[in-house]
Amino acid sequence: MRLKVDLNCDMGESFGAYQIGADEQVMELITSANIACGFHAGDPLVMRRTVRLAKRFGVSVGAHPGFRDLVGFGRREMKCTPDEMYADVLYQIGALAAICRAEDVRLHHVKPHGALYNMASANAEMSGAIAAAVADFDRNLVLFALPDSELHKAGLAAGLRVACEVFGDRAYNEDGSLVSRRLPGAVLADDSVAEAQVRRMVLEGKVTAVTARDVTVKADTICVHGDNPHAVAFIRRIRERLTEDGVTLAAPFTA
Amino acid sequence: MRLKVDLNCDMGESFGAYQIGADEQVMELITSANIACGFHAGDPLVMRRTVRLAKRFGVSVGAHPGFRDLVGFGRREMKCTPDEMYADVLYQIGALAAICRAEDVRLHHVKPHGALYNMASANAEMSGAIAAAVADFDRNLVLFALPDSELHKAGLAAGLRVACEVFGDRAYNEDGSLVSRRLPGAVLADDSVAEAQVRRMVLEGKVTAVTARDVTVKADTICVHGDNPHAVAFIRRIRERLTEDGVTLAAPFTA
Amino acid sequence: MRLKVDLNCDMGESFGAYQIGADEQVMELITSANIACGFHAGDPLVMRRTVRLAKRFGVSVGAHPGFRDLVGFGRREMKCTPDEMYADVLYQIGALAAICRAEDVRLHHVKPHGALYNMASANAEMSGAIAAAVADFDRNLVLFALPDSELHKAGLAAGLRVACEVFGDRAYNEDGSLVSRRLPGAVLADDSVAEAQVRRMVLEGKVTAVTARDVTVKADTICVHGDNPHAVAFIRRIRERLTEDGVTLAAPFTA
Amino acid sequence: MRLKVDLNCDMGESFGAYQIGADEQVMELITSANIACGFHAGDPLVMRRTVRLAKRFGVSVGAHPGFRDLVGFGRREMKCTPDEMYADVLYQIGALAAICRAEDVRLHHVKPHGALYNMASANAEMSGAIAAAVADFDRNLVLFALPDSELHKAGLAAGLRVACEVFGDRAYNEDGSLVSRRLPGAVLADDSVAEAQVRRMVLEGKVTAVTARDVTVKADTICVHGDNPHAVAFIRRIRERLTEDGVTLAAPFTA
Repeated sequence: MRLKVDLNCDMGESFGAYQIGADEQVMELITSANIACGFHAGDPLVMRRTVRLAKRFGVSVGAHPGFRDLVGFGRREMKCTPDEMYADVLYQIGALAAICRAEDVRLHHVKPHGALYNMASANAEMSGAIAAAVADFDRNLVLFALPDSELHKAGLAAGLRVACEVFGDRAYNEDGSLVSRRLPGAVLADDSVAEAQVRRMVLEGKVTAVTARDVTVKADTICVHGDNPHAVAFIRRIRERLTEDGVTLAAPFTA
Repeated sequence: MRLKVDLNCDMGESFGAYQIGADEQVMELITSANIACGFHAGDPLVMRRTVRLAKRFGVSVGAHPGFRDLVGFGRREMKCTPDEMYADVLYQIGALAAICRAEDVRLHHVKPHGALYNMASANAEMSGAIAAAVADFDRNLVLFALPDSELHKAGLAAGLRVACEVFGDRAYNEDGSLVSRRLPGAVLADDSVAEAQVRRMVLEGKVTAVTARDVTVKADTICVHGDNPHAVAFIRRIRERLTEDGVTLAAPFTA
Repeated sequence: MRLKVDLNCDMGESFGAYQIGADEQVMELITSANIACGFHAGDPLVMRRTVRLAKRFGVSVGAHPGFRDLVGFGRREMKCTPDEMYADVLYQIGALAAICRAEDVRLHHVKPHGALYNMASANAEMSGAIAAAVADFDRNLVLFALPDSELHKAGLAAGLRVACEVFGDRAYNEDGSLVSRRLPGAVLADDSVAEAQVRRMVLEGKVTAVTARDVTVKADTICVHGDNPHAVAFIRRIRERLTEDGVTLAAPFTA
Repeated sequence: MRLKVDLNCDMGESFGAYQIGADEQVMELITSANIACGFHAGDPLVMRRTVRLAKRFGVSVGAHPGFRDLVGFGRREMKCTPDEMYADVLYQIGALAAICRAEDVRLHHVKPHGALYNMASANAEMSGAIAAAVADFDRNLVLFALPDSELHKAGLAAGLRVACEVFGDRAYNEDGSLVSRRLPGAVLADDSVAEAQVRRMVLEGKVTAVTARDVTVKADTICVHGDNPHAVAFIRRIRERLTEDGVTLAAPFTA
């Protein structure tokens, strides 16, 4: 069987007159677009423009809900109740889904953003609320989650298909979790190291943890970034290398 | 044929710790609820609570999109482009529709709020944008509009069913438009006058304009208010009187 | 020497069309008003109205800065950096101070709101940032803080005068901190118990902790609430009782 | 007497993770910085950073209040009451003034932003509200206004010093007002035309209107832009040319 992997990138993060990301250049390089839904980034017109761009390049569209914290870009932890999270996520998915419907695009997946993703990964109650919001909206949506995280488990428990997300530029702990950004060496600055890590995760299902031990990891989708020219060059390079390796690039759970 | 009319009321206008409206008492008295969608009022949890309340009483649920102006409650005119209006309305409808879907409730109608409703009534371009957003989301939705307004025409042109909305507490001009709130006598303070006006509009299809001339008016739905005890008492009174008159109370275009 | 104590209450929490609190009735009963500054509650017009009301009754005006979280009313913990907190608090103080200046009212104190107050009480770095913002704006401002909290210490270290705040309706731990709201018995529901606790704190400088042991406590200002008729009645009762006890009611550090 | 003119530029328009403007490069080229105050752009940390930058280069700091419309960048007309405008402007001035005070910088002027500036220019009631907010905060502040506009008149009536603002890149009507952006030729795309217009306004006090007639114009301050490399190059060019012309560049009403 041929190996297959997805390249996902956060898109549609501009807001009004404010521009973030080189969406025009990135879209043709990726297979899944996580589109901001207006709470931590994005606005209705940006969402429409981004959905249209994804459609043009045949890229799968996902909702990228975040905390209601525009000035913090959804990166600051907020102590919300599970009910608040459920309703906030459902609201954001619906808003994007409406724009997809008007553009005749199928909503494919949901990936929580920033602090919401990180908090949910370690918190079963939050993850349960998020997974329930996704499932209550549409049980056919794919949930993107850190492998073996609480969000992964909650997605499966809610009857959703879960795509395991891996990171080329982040160091891993022995238990498969990411090394905290507060610790040195958490981010892999060297592109060739990141490239090698991505290829090994995809081709062998393994990653070397910071302890030097090998960890088994499932790689359905690779998180890439498009917010600077260097990052865009890295996506291009990873695409080429994986293609040379005989890996098919496609959104998870698509034919 | 039996006469039929709808009683619609703006609902779900609370926001976080802020309460507006006696939704619990009003819901059992009306047949259509226009639920705020988070731009001028409402938040995701309030929206869910209000959808559930409507479901409990068998009340039709409609989206009530407004300008993104919480501090102004959507009552201040804003010069937006038609594209901005289209996307803002679509976003808000989608957000509420997602909550409806999770609660297994069908979204029935759309009624623009406040300054958006007033500006659209007199502006063909704005109305075209709003009607397009509704139709692009779901051609089965009913659009609530002032009879013969630009919004009415745009709804019909977009292939939507339009429910003609009348006001018991507002004075009418000879052309069927409302007397501007800036003019004296625009609001009918006397309940018995308002009651008589409502009954005549529903039973005879006529209203007496400020010029004393009779104007023909189509009354599919009556706008009522629930933000104070006096208003709630008026809804109760109108319900009783219309029922005595043999009028069926039901949401427009429902069986 | 005659005993003296302050009655402080959160005021100006309305927002646009949204009303919270019976400010008109409460203002004549208190001696310090903590006025919301637009981030968690309040808007510029509400702030002006509240400053005018305080002036009319000779009540000391304080800034009540909170997290930028209107839908959560500033009650949800947010992980901000000290720099963000410093700048957010300084911004809010300045906004209120401008309105005070226009109304010819002196800004008297600062009391952080909700989650900001609670987080700061236990966190030296946050408290340092908040105290620095207050001191950098005006070293003559009084800082309201939980006695012996990190905020209290940071205020003194920044060269500010600190008013020790006590709560009639909250149970105390042996170390003088408040029993967490998540624990049973954290809130004293019985008014006569609350009244007795307030009087003992003011007259004897003591409070009985949940362990039944006596704790020494400094009571410069008593936090009262004005958001419901029952609360307003309690303020009235406390005023009368303390007056009968011979206690002078006045804002802290006023002649 | 030596001729003197000011170069003013909108600054501090970034918001959280969103960057707008090359403030670092522009600041050393201008003499007055209009700093956004958080309603249409800017946030407390950006405001502090921008005040510090202005201080470093000895640039006069002004408040740049706008409509509360972040997604529209304050460029959309909003129908606010004069009371709302007064309070919104006062709030924003105070917020920036607090940051200035903490950085030991004197607040020098106020220039309304975008739609607020444009609406006020033609509306006496709005301008009266804005001028009153400025004067009630500090009668020593300089108000920037279009010459002979309603804002100019209101500023003088309120006892403020008014700096007359001219535009190099905009065509003028015969009455000294700007040609509406909706009309062709409203913006002068050719830099050498703009440069010639600026020099003539400063050196001769005249501008050629679209009707080819000469109009007398008072040029205390020239509005320049810093949001793209081309605009920055234009500021540099204008500086050099005016300096060669023997014109002193300095903020208005400074020694």
